[in-house]
Amino acid sequence: MKNLPLYFEDFKIGMSIKTQPKKITKEEIINFAKSYDPQSFHIDEEEAKKGPFKRLVSSGFMTLGKSFTQFFETGVIEGTGMGAWGIDELRWTKPVYPEDILVTQVEILEKKISSKNPSRGTVRSHQTVFNQNNEIVMTWISNFMIKTKVSS
Amino acid sequence: MKNLPLYFEDFKIGMSIKTQPKKITKEEIINFAKSYDPQSFHIDEEEAKKGPFKRLVSSGFMTLGKSFTQFFETGVIEGTGMGAWGIDELRWTKPVYPEDILVTQVEILEKKISSKNPSRGTVRSHQTVFNQNNEIVMTWISNFMIKTKVSS
Repeated sequence: MKNLPLYFEDFKIGMSIKTQPKKITKEEIINFAKSYDPQSFHIDEEEAKKGPFKRLVSSGFMTLGKSFTQFFETGVIEGTGMGAWGIDELRWTKPVYPEDILVTQVEILEKKISSKNPSRGTVRSHQTVFNQNNEIVMTWISNFMIKTKVSS
Repeated sequence: MKNLPLYFEDFKIGMSIKTQPKKITKEEIINFAKSYDPQSFHIDEEEAKKGPFKRLVSSGFMTLGKSFTQFFETGVIEGTGMGAWGIDELRWTKPVYPEDILVTQVEILEKKISSKNPSRGTVRSHQTVFNQNNEIVMTWISNFMIKTKVSS
């Protein structure tokens, strides 16, 4: 994609962006979960064998942060992203295991200029996260605030 | 609350659970964001001054993980929680700054036994996260899977 980052005006409904792949490691799963999701099936390999997934799995919150970071690293919103006001309909559809390799596909759903502040607008997008077997492990809708060209 | 953890049968619609407070530190904000949300206003104090929040703020994904961890640390779902299948209507309503002290209030909205597997059911709850000024910084609805007494 040319001319990154994209401003609000540059996002088109239906536009699709695919990220680079990212590998999930066991160490990262455990380290993340100790602080942000300390359930036994995220922090203890032995306990995880007795748990609902029968082995260690990634915290869904970690999968979410990794997926967003994949999108951010495309450069599409670097410098034009102004935070986000919400997430809708996040679904964890399959477990994410150590050594899984994830890719996120982002599709632009809607956009709306801010009524209070024309220097920004909401870009609503749908993310689909795939593993190395092309299985969908997570989907989520984000509501990002993006700078307009007026603001720069 | 007595007799923790709670099984699916123990959750009642309208039940309300308040967590212990948790402080957010600058170091934690930066360390989290480097791996899971590397936008400049989460990782660089100087750059953050020029950004949309005019200072460093927590990644919303980190606030989410902290809020869940607060709930988990009540002991209510420790050993009965079997993961979650989704989040709905997450809203970041105010920025979270270094040194903010957060409390999460959890209210049980709905419950539904699994049609496939009577050893578990969904407990749907609404979380409200407050800062030390009693301002709401985040709200989110979670869909947790919880063990039934049948399973134990």
